[in-house]
Amino acid sequence: MSSLKTRTTLLLNWYANPYHTPIFAAKASGFYEEEGIKLAILEPTDPSDVTEIVGTGQVDIGLKAMLHTVAGYAKGYPIRSIATLLDEPPTGLIALKSSGINTFQDIVGKRIGYIGEFGKKIIDSLAQHAGIDPNSYQTVRTGMNITDAICRNIVDAGIGFINFQKVELEHLRGEVNFLRLDQLAGLGCCCFCSIQYIVPEKTILAQPDMLRKFLRATQRGVAFTTENPGEAFELLCQEKPHLRSDLYKDIFYRTLPFFDRHMKHPPHDWNKVNRYMQHLTIIEPGFDITKCYTDEYLPLVPYSDIEPIACCA
Amino acid sequence: MSSLKTRTTLLLNWYANPYHTPIFAAKASGFYEEEGIKLAILEPTDPSDVTEIVGTGQVDIGLKAMLHTVAGYAKGYPIRSIATLLDEPPTGLIALKSSGINTFQDIVGKRIGYIGEFGKKIIDSLAQHAGIDPNSYQTVRTGMNITDAICRNIVDAGIGFINFQKVELEHLRGEVNFLRLDQLAGLGCCCFCSIQYIVPEKTILAQPDMLRKFLRATQRGVAFTTENPGEAFELLCQEKPHLRSDLYKDIFYRTLPFFDRHMKHPPHDWNKVNRYMQHLTIIEPGFDITKCYTDEYLPLVPYSDIEPIACCA
Repeated sequence: MSSLKTRTTLLLNWYANPYHTPIFAAKASGFYEEEGIKLAILEPTDPSDVTEIVGTGQVDIGLKAMLHTVAGYAKGYPIRSIATLLDEPPTGLIALKSSGINTFQDIVGKRIGYIGEFGKKIIDSLAQHAGIDPNSYQTVRTGMNITDAICRNIVDAGIGFINFQKVELEHLRGEVNFLRLDQLAGLGCCCFCSIQYIVPEKTILAQPDMLRKFLRATQRGVAFTTENPGEAFELLCQEKPHLRSDLYKDIFYRTLPFFDRHMKHPPHDWNKVNRYMQHLTIIEPGFDITKCYTDEYLPLVPYSDIEPIACCA
Repeated sequence: MSSLKTRTTLLLNWYANPYHTPIFAAKASGFYEEEGIKLAILEPTDPSDVTEIVGTGQVDIGLKAMLHTVAGYAKGYPIRSIATLLDEPPTGLIALKSSGINTFQDIVGKRIGYIGEFGKKIIDSLAQHAGIDPNSYQTVRTGMNITDAICRNIVDAGIGFINFQKVELEHLRGEVNFLRLDQLAGLGCCCFCSIQYIVPEKTILAQPDMLRKFLRATQRGVAFTTENPGEAFELLCQEKPHLRSDLYKDIFYRTLPFFDRHMKHPPHDWNKVNRYMQHLTIIEPGFDITKCYTDEYLPLVPYSDIEPIACCA
């Protein structure tokens, strides 16, 4: 059986979109191929399926938000983050200006969309922090397509990225208000929303060299994307032609500041997420978050085909 | 006299341009004012004047590349970096495709522009590394306006940023080749080109609280710029209307990935620059680079006007 396995599988966290450009650019440029990796990129129909599929080792690598990575580990899946794709993309409550939701207090009497179970915990915790009666607003599980849920008038507001769902709603409907979750919570960063490359223990045990090669190729993809944004977006569009629109181009350019060129795990952020997730009772007190991530497979020096000057190797 | 001093002076490293947007956005948004800082932004006519003016304490704060900061300190100016504006903007040899310079070996017989004394050292070191006869190419000191020097046919190639001079030359003349210095040197990063906020010892001794306030306001400016790029660029253009062009807008968007949202000093990068600068004989062997920077004045938690949730303070 194992000799039939020639492909490395990567399961995205959502449908292929502009924030996955570094991966598509690396693939189209042959960076994975040069490392001997035949990369199969898979997209989930339902993002909620990803943690289990990665956690049970059915794919080699996956993508998932930091919060879900930690929650998945705490639930018993032997997963670990090996790199960062998006570094703290600002996440907030998004609403049309016409909704009348201008401050967090305005959620009273409104329908608030959330993606999955943790989103509801975050909203309820923020409401409690702000002294809002938990029965004074309604929460609705909408999944990732919060923009569509607002447009179809299923909710009045919902959680999304400043560089994605906010841009989408602006393009579709006009002026949008955005209330940053980290500011509402006084967190000081949206690190819990960072998007991580995660792997099951099985991949770490059986293919550590592949992980090093995968990250080296991916880091070249990040460098290519940030240094040649127009060409990188075109490579994405050649693979996914329906993304060739002003909307997705705008989302792409507004995602540029959040691509993590170093791809590392800042311990300060992970410690903060540890405290926040304990506060949300998603994980137990005293949880050891250092088991959830490792920089071990990241290239020390970015790819170069030139012998380094002696001092700098 | 000191009661007459109401303004805090910030001397930019070059004429005001899109990579200074976070500072202009912070000023236009009143962030410095809210901290009690009346910020006077000064622009040098000749960038080579900046280190001395900051080093002799004639301004409160300045901007300068990492390499110059270290070189200035080594020369005896009591300066120190307190934060990072641009993180490793990729820097390279820029030439029109029509120049025939496609690889570094092609500099033989050509005129290569450099900004200041260290640029020449870097080019000569790279040539030596590549086994090129030092008499086979010509170096010309052109200052920062390398694009203009290429357009006026004073040089065939010169050193510039991928997100600035390369974009400029493309807009003005068409297809451009770009040979990354860090790849030619096998450095693994363009950290020596990072743009730093630097201060003389005088400012540190007399106004430590002002520095904390300045950086808090500036960090809000970085966040505003990366999260609301269109609005931030508009604020820059309102102050500097001649920047309102497709060229500068393109430069701005291509600079977005290099704005350092965390503004910190990665010790790994500074150590690498230390080794590289010793190799270039700009500083002495055994130089202690940790004296050249400090994270001490950076805000631990980004600005928020909300009480934090207990766990996350």
